Amino acid sequence: MVRPARLMRSAVGRFFEYDTPKIVHIQSLHIGITYRFVQLVIISYVIGWVLVYKKGYQETDNVESSVTSKVKGVVLTNFTLDPNATADEEKLRVWDTADYVIPPQENGAFFVTTNIIMSPNQEQGICPELGASCSTGFDCPSGSKSANGVRTGTCNNATSTCDIRAWCPVEKDVEPQSPVLQGTEDFTVLVKNQIFFPKFRVRRRNILDGFAKNASYLDSCLYHPSADPFCPIFRLGDIIALAQENYSTIAVKGAVIGFVIEWECNLDLSVESCLPKYSFRRIDNADDVIAKGWNFRYANYWTDTVGRQSVQRRTLIKAYGIRFVFYVYGVAGKFNIVPLATNLGAGLALLGLAVIFCDIVILYCSKRRQFYSDNKYLRVQDEDAVLFEEDDRSGHSGENFFS
Amino acid sequence: MVRPARLMRSAVGRFFEYDTPKIVHIQSLHIGITYRFVQLVIISYVIGWVLVYKKGYQETDNVESSVTSKVKGVVLTNFTLDPNATADEEKLRVWDTADYVIPPQENGAFFVTTNIIMSPNQEQGICPELGASCSTGFDCPSGSKSANGVRTGTCNNATSTCDIRAWCPVEKDVEPQSPVLQGTEDFTVLVKNQIFFPKFRVRRRNILDGFAKNASYLDSCLYHPSADPFCPIFRLGDIIALAQENYSTIAVKGAVIGFVIEWECNLDLSVESCLPKYSFRRIDNADDVIAKGWNFRYANYWTDTVGRQSVQRRTLIKAYGIRFVFYVYGVAGKFNIVPLATNLGAGLALLGLAVIFCDIVILYCSKRRQFYSDNKYLRVQDEDAVLFEEDDRSGHSGENFFS
Amino acid sequence: MVRPARLMRSAVGRFFEYDTPKIVHIQSLHIGITYRFVQLVIISYVIGWVLVYKKGYQETDNVESSVTSKVKGVVLTNFTLDPNATADEEKLRVWDTADYVIPPQENGAFFVTTNIIMSPNQEQGICPELGASCSTGFDCPSGSKSANGVRTGTCNNATSTCDIRAWCPVEKDVEPQSPVLQGTEDFTVLVKNQIFFPKFRVRRRNILDGFAKNASYLDSCLYHPSADPFCPIFRLGDIIALAQENYSTIAVKGAVIGFVIEWECNLDLSVESCLPKYSFRRIDNADDVIAKGWNFRYANYWTDTVGRQSVQRRTLIKAYGIRFVFYVYGVAGKFNIVPLATNLGAGLALLGLAVIFCDIVILYCSKRRQFYSDNKYLRVQDEDAVLFEEDDRSGHSGENFFS
Repeated sequence: MVRPARLMRSAVGRFFEYDTPKIVHIQSLHIGITYRFVQLVIISYVIGWVLVYKKGYQETDNVESSVTSKVKGVVLTNFTLDPNATADEEKLRVWDTADYVIPPQENGAFFVTTNIIMSPNQEQGICPELGASCSTGFDCPSGSKSANGVRTGTCNNATSTCDIRAWCPVEKDVEPQSPVLQGTEDFTVLVKNQIFFPKFRVRRRNILDGFAKNASYLDSCLYHPSADPFCPIFRLGDIIALAQENYSTIAVKGAVIGFVIEWECNLDLSVESCLPKYSFRRIDNADDVIAKGWNFRYANYWTDTVGRQSVQRRTLIKAYGIRFVFYVYGVAGKFNIVPLATNLGAGLALLGLAVIFCDIVILYCSKRRQFYSDNKYLRVQDEDAVLFEEDDRSGHSGENFFS
Repeated sequence: MVRPARLMRSAVGRFFEYDTPKIVHIQSLHIGITYRFVQLVIISYVIGWVLVYKKGYQETDNVESSVTSKVKGVVLTNFTLDPNATADEEKLRVWDTADYVIPPQENGAFFVTTNIIMSPNQEQGICPELGASCSTGFDCPSGSKSANGVRTGTCNNATSTCDIRAWCPVEKDVEPQSPVLQGTEDFTVLVKNQIFFPKFRVRRRNILDGFAKNASYLDSCLYHPSADPFCPIFRLGDIIALAQENYSTIAVKGAVIGFVIEWECNLDLSVESCLPKYSFRRIDNADDVIAKGWNFRYANYWTDTVGRQSVQRRTLIKAYGIRFVFYVYGVAGKFNIVPLATNLGAGLALLGLAVIFCDIVILYCSKRRQFYSDNKYLRVQDEDAVLFEEDDRSGHSGENFFS
Repeated sequence: MVRPARLMRSAVGRFFEYDTPKIVHIQSLHIGITYRFVQLVIISYVIGWVLVYKKGYQETDNVESSVTSKVKGVVLTNFTLDPNATADEEKLRVWDTADYVIPPQENGAFFVTTNIIMSPNQEQGICPELGASCSTGFDCPSGSKSANGVRTGTCNNATSTCDIRAWCPVEKDVEPQSPVLQGTEDFTVLVKNQIFFPKFRVRRRNILDGFAKNASYLDSCLYHPSADPFCPIFRLGDIIALAQENYSTIAVKGAVIGFVIEWECNLDLSVESCLPKYSFRRIDNADDVIAKGWNFRYANYWTDTVGRQSVQRRTLIKAYGIRFVFYVYGVAGKFNIVPLATNLGAGLALLGLAVIFCDIVILYCSKRRQFYSDNKYLRVQDEDAVLFEEDDRSGHSGENFFS
């Protein structure tokens, strides 16, 4: 009758037991100092490096970003598109945003023209190519391709170069020496960067709340790394100077510049302390031997009506310039129990190293290693231990066998 | 003769030994309950949170994505480019994709014009600027720059503003009140998103296999978050509504909208359950005081022949509109032994906390702490333990010394 | 007098103690082999998989990348834009980079036109739509929209289709059968990829230092996966072949091709061994039923002066072609003590599994389980252990109580 109750009590009792390792507590100055020192090193590493320096108690999240940019500025150039133009006035030309930002919008980048080679009013036809000379049509195999067009098989007597079918007249292949657009370093760009940390539902933007309603400040400010580090308007010349490059050199053949915006946000502090940090660096190689700098060709097309026929014409522009590419980096951290538990758990596991290290010291390097070994180990011999040598420790084994 | 064999046997024997910690097994209801409870909390955390909720048994991989988009729709506008036009017909103008998607393709984004300010047939020349008034040429320093051009040094008598060298006539600087392109909310966009998880060699796309061959469905369907969540065709008005914005407000000055596609794939289940989830949100700030919304200027260039000279002309367009930026997020998880082992290992390490906690309880907080301490610790005193006080526990130490 | 000194000595002494677990050392062939085998498996896993294969001793960093591209090549096409053209010559047209790379630059992608449908000299007006036929004006509700324009409400007698207000004449809706631009597979593209590992301050580029100064090599080389794997100039036809696609098929309706550049850098070795690896794959689906391949429409605009009025005209181009999208992946690893410590710590924790496993074997599966249990456990009974059954082990407990 009592049995079921006793079994029940027994099972419950068995469950509520506590197993804790038997510890050999060694009172020794030498090994004690060693042990505490190793422990201190490990604890310092875990707390100092992992928890404090690497903020191991924080959950982190990467940034989602959107950047838009708007360039402002005009320059006046002094060159002629039309060789028949006589008046000086005809050579003057104003360039505004629509003229020098090509394409008008890009995802995560913008381009500002600093130098151009313009080939106005080209039309499809046959004209002599520039460069390599020929003496007879045999030097110009029909159908072979040059940089600008397809050879017709004849050698042009006037220029001693092959005739090609191309957009005529072909672009003058000149190495630019100085930028056609003088003064582009005074252009300014307004940069708007919105970021979002999805895990923490935190939104920030580079136009800080304190300034966001202040139109007069935002209309007149200019970014300066120390004097005005949160103004969202940047002078191109300043950007290039901060990238440690020379604007007048870059303007000739163009460059690719990284426009880096960094957000390092500790959300355990006020969200107001989560601020953008700008930096700039040249990305392309200044000493490239092919395709140095950055340039590309584009054209404007139209059709003229000449007599009964319509003729398609174009103005070809080889644009050299600075391509600004946005890189937005950001990490936000906020206290969370999970990474703290993980890092503390890993730290505890590492503390085991101190015991392993000191065990090696007392069991292998100490004069009294036999004494420590006898205290640390309880030797037990199973029946199948036939291979074990009967040595001086067998007495202990035997003794412990029945302890 | 026997020696080498014995040494060999001894070495092999030494190697095949097993070390297991001596455990103090405490039968106590109080500490047992505490121990099991702490263990339960840790195991629940490891299994419930780390393994089940955070899927700690899965290896994860980030998505590689490619998005292409194609906008469809036409609108009719009623305004005139040419002030000399008399007939009503001249004011009507149809806008198709080539007219309002600028540039025609972008990597990871697309732009739809909703409002424009057009400045047709501009040419380089001198004309009065708009805005700030002047009385004499001294108010217009020669060479100084205005928003649209460079001042010539004269004050225009007719307008009382500075004469500038610019693309003339200059753009009318008006704040848009209502969108010129009415009905752009009915445009649709076909979005194709291909994703790839390189670690698992799994490919998915937003046009699901079940629909991919069904041209009539794909020609006529329209995305709806609940009724048709996998149709790849989106009405612009619906997107803005789902982003909780008002289309007619946004259409006036433009906006930047995030087009978010999320893929959360548990590859332990069928790959068919790996489905896209769309969401939309406005990225730019609705209450910006400078450069509110989203707009940019671009121009179409051509050359007219006037007498013997050719004149370059352009139509400048300030385009307001909605810039849709794609954000594709995706994580795939699949069972893998490595993260499972890592998380179980970390879990085991954490279980050590239960012992540490209970040891603190029995050794420092229990009434019978001396009893537990005597059982848990085997005290050993080394010869250099000169600093240790001879206290009431020395008897135990001595006793254990030879145990 | 002696007291304070003694207390001090005592406190210092208490601090410099060493606790090491008491170990039961079992000499048994069976359990020894089991133990060493499980240990071997865990150590092999930790060293072989985690440390060596997964390079668990390295800190890793993700790549920052910038890609620019420049396409070269010309093709000659033989078709007419102007139906009034009579001479054969008028049909020949050369296409250069400015003609077929649209837009001229994109961030992280480039597009090469392989096929076009051109609609020259369109102007706003009323003309019959193509496709769906009508018999009366009732079939053409005024204001309803077709693909190209807005219906006027009348049915055109000549074509039996609705009249629409649109850019006239409307684009011919033909399925392209063969590419208009023949020979685009011979175009080459120069790709410049600069990468940066911010944590390690390491910069690399795909034009290797050994070649960077060798202009003649860079002008003439051509990428080949085995013969010339580091040449930065790629033939489009080769790219498509390496993506296992057929160029002449793709050229008809276009495609999206992933241009993958992988950098896997072991910075413990020489930085010179950190090299790019190119691969290519088609991203869009070859068997899509809607919007197959890749195409988009763009237009060139100009204004003609007809009498007193100016007429805006455009040439609409539907461009089919190959969109190359760059994907740059890169991971750099370098020896660091932190991940090594973390992985070793986790490995040590895992070694505890061997003890747990063997304890289960000897305590539950062994014939001599009672013998092992008696040796491993020191049973201690607290006063509140009222629930515990007095069983055959009580003798041991009692005995141990005072041990």
